[in-house]
Amino acid sequence: MATSGKVIRCRAAVAWAVGKPLSLEEVEVAPPKAREVRVKIVATGICRTDDHVLEGAFPDIDFPIIPGHEGAGIVESIGEGVTSVKPGDKVILFGLPQCGECCFCKNPDSNYCLKSHLSVSQCLLPDKTSRFTCRGKQIHHFLWISTFAEYTVVPEFTLAKVAAAAPLDKVCLLGCGFSTGYGAAINTAKVKPGSTCAVFGLGGVGLSVVMGCRAAGASRIIAVDINKEKFARAKELGATECISPRDFKKPVQEVLTEMTGYGVDYSFEVIGTADTTTAALASCNMSTGVCVVVGVLPSGSVVPIDPLLLLSGHTCKGTLLGGWKMRDAIPKLVSSYLEKKFNSDLLITHTLPMAKINEGFQLLRAGKSIRTVLLF
Amino acid sequence: MATSGKVIRCRAAVAWAVGKPLSLEEVEVAPPKAREVRVKIVATGICRTDDHVLEGAFPDIDFPIIPGHEGAGIVESIGEGVTSVKPGDKVILFGLPQCGECCFCKNPDSNYCLKSHLSVSQCLLPDKTSRFTCRGKQIHHFLWISTFAEYTVVPEFTLAKVAAAAPLDKVCLLGCGFSTGYGAAINTAKVKPGSTCAVFGLGGVGLSVVMGCRAAGASRIIAVDINKEKFARAKELGATECISPRDFKKPVQEVLTEMTGYGVDYSFEVIGTADTTTAALASCNMSTGVCVVVGVLPSGSVVPIDPLLLLSGHTCKGTLLGGWKMRDAIPKLVSSYLEKKFNSDLLITHTLPMAKINEGFQLLRAGKSIRTVLLF
Repeated sequence: MATSGKVIRCRAAVAWAVGKPLSLEEVEVAPPKAREVRVKIVATGICRTDDHVLEGAFPDIDFPIIPGHEGAGIVESIGEGVTSVKPGDKVILFGLPQCGECCFCKNPDSNYCLKSHLSVSQCLLPDKTSRFTCRGKQIHHFLWISTFAEYTVVPEFTLAKVAAAAPLDKVCLLGCGFSTGYGAAINTAKVKPGSTCAVFGLGGVGLSVVMGCRAAGASRIIAVDINKEKFARAKELGATECISPRDFKKPVQEVLTEMTGYGVDYSFEVIGTADTTTAALASCNMSTGVCVVVGVLPSGSVVPIDPLLLLSGHTCKGTLLGGWKMRDAIPKLVSSYLEKKFNSDLLITHTLPMAKINEGFQLLRAGKSIRTVLLF
Repeated sequence: MATSGKVIRCRAAVAWAVGKPLSLEEVEVAPPKAREVRVKIVATGICRTDDHVLEGAFPDIDFPIIPGHEGAGIVESIGEGVTSVKPGDKVILFGLPQCGECCFCKNPDSNYCLKSHLSVSQCLLPDKTSRFTCRGKQIHHFLWISTFAEYTVVPEFTLAKVAAAAPLDKVCLLGCGFSTGYGAAINTAKVKPGSTCAVFGLGGVGLSVVMGCRAAGASRIIAVDINKEKFARAKELGATECISPRDFKKPVQEVLTEMTGYGVDYSFEVIGTADTTTAALASCNMSTGVCVVVGVLPSGSVVPIDPLLLLSGHTCKGTLLGGWKMRDAIPKLVSSYLEKKFNSDLLITHTLPMAKINEGFQLLRAGKSIRTVLLF
């Protein structure tokens, strides 16, 4: 038995109810059961989706909960039957599982998994119980990984071992934001060399799209945001031009069409509003243009689409975590990081101790940060 | 000079104004100018789009006009500089030109052409004049080809020579309806062998989608229509199951998802309403599903799309004439027809003399015909 078998008392950020700030608490973390792994979280990014959870934007999230889903750490102990990691291994966690057994996992063209939250709640572990308690109450898991806890227990198929040389305070971003954006360009859009791209929204994910477009060999990458403070970083990461829709009287889709003749080859919506989705679709080439919707729109929102845009041949598609099968992809992405094939470190504008987590969320809401990494 | 140079007086069906029935008239057809071809139309199909023209559904169509855009005939004379056909050649006409010179024509991934009606009106020939007059008035061309005229003058790049053995009263369908549906499955969706498809709408184009899915090796083809009279023909052409949404209390997308486990691999909307577009998108597999919008929705209509459908990976795309570069494709499609690789003859339920054109439209509106072919 490799598991220590003991309950660990440690710190975690608990969301007790919708609309409340995160509360730093001492929590109890039970040992891992069969096919589960207990991980000591070293670093975790703050993603916009965590903020959406706090706002109550997702109706199928159960409170109280420990959010966080972009974390990296070290295996503390393993449950029965775990074979892919052992205590001491460095790992990255991810909210989109890869069980390896469902029809989607077995389909090489899909990165969906029937164990994921869109099919079955990940607010409790697969055996429908929680490993967290606080002040005598059961606390829910978030996407099974709850990386805002110093120790977390996760199913084996939501983590991947990474190279011992990987700096966890940097590569934690590969668990969500970076991989989503980078993969949206590489896997979902399959950006071709020499093509023209437009990226709507220059947060951490949008900038990762920019990096993916550059890695794919795009010759023109037009970054679009109303916050011009983000333009310098976008250019550093590969954007060839930056525009703010507020600088034009005409709709930004018309601006982009004029800039490019007949629209961009690929457009990416990385904001999460219906208006920007409509604009992104209308910005791309009427015949061969591909619009990838990366942003997560609020539940129940509806994107009105002009059917004439589709008639002429447009494609509109979604992406789930950049199309990566995460258990397979993460070790390779970490290798690429170590080989300096991309520099995701440039997305990290702030590093804070866990105690300052609410400050990190304030930076996000104020548009002052790209990615804040929290350290335990 | 190969052109006869004379004005030809002949019969044509003229739409004098929105909402009026077609009027059979004697018209004058001027000789072809440079790079134009005068064709004696032998046979022409009636397509739903012609009816939309009569209804006034397209704001950018100029009246009076001679509709018709699914015709085949014999070259009568050619203008200066025409090299691809000579008098006596059998040809098929098409409303989507392939000029061969614009950036889209030069792009192997696009079948759009900058000379087409979505970019520049095809109600007059490229020199901005008409070759038709009637009762002293200029009559407009429709998509440059106006196949409801016994003789029509068209730019060389809107026709293709076909094999002398081709029966024009059958292969005329390849000019629009058949090619649109068949190509939507083959070129746009790129249906894979063994996959599951759903086709919404079993008119001539929808049934051609069914044929395309079968040709591509789909193992399940579910045909969807509220008119059960169309089911027998759909099964003959390849549908493995036929369902009517009116036989179920739950939405048809839920029925299809239950029938297939996680939704179909490919869905095709071939009706042209926002509701069926929404249903088609929701019917396909949440991760790898591809929805192809083939139907032409009325100008200004808006398709509301649930962004969650996109988040999980869905693709929604349009198709323009089935993705074929028509001048290149038509001779090959006719060869396939002659080799009996598909049997588009089964789409033809009625053959009428041109004098009965309004009867043909009545059959279409009443849902009594699939394709009516008119003969001069």
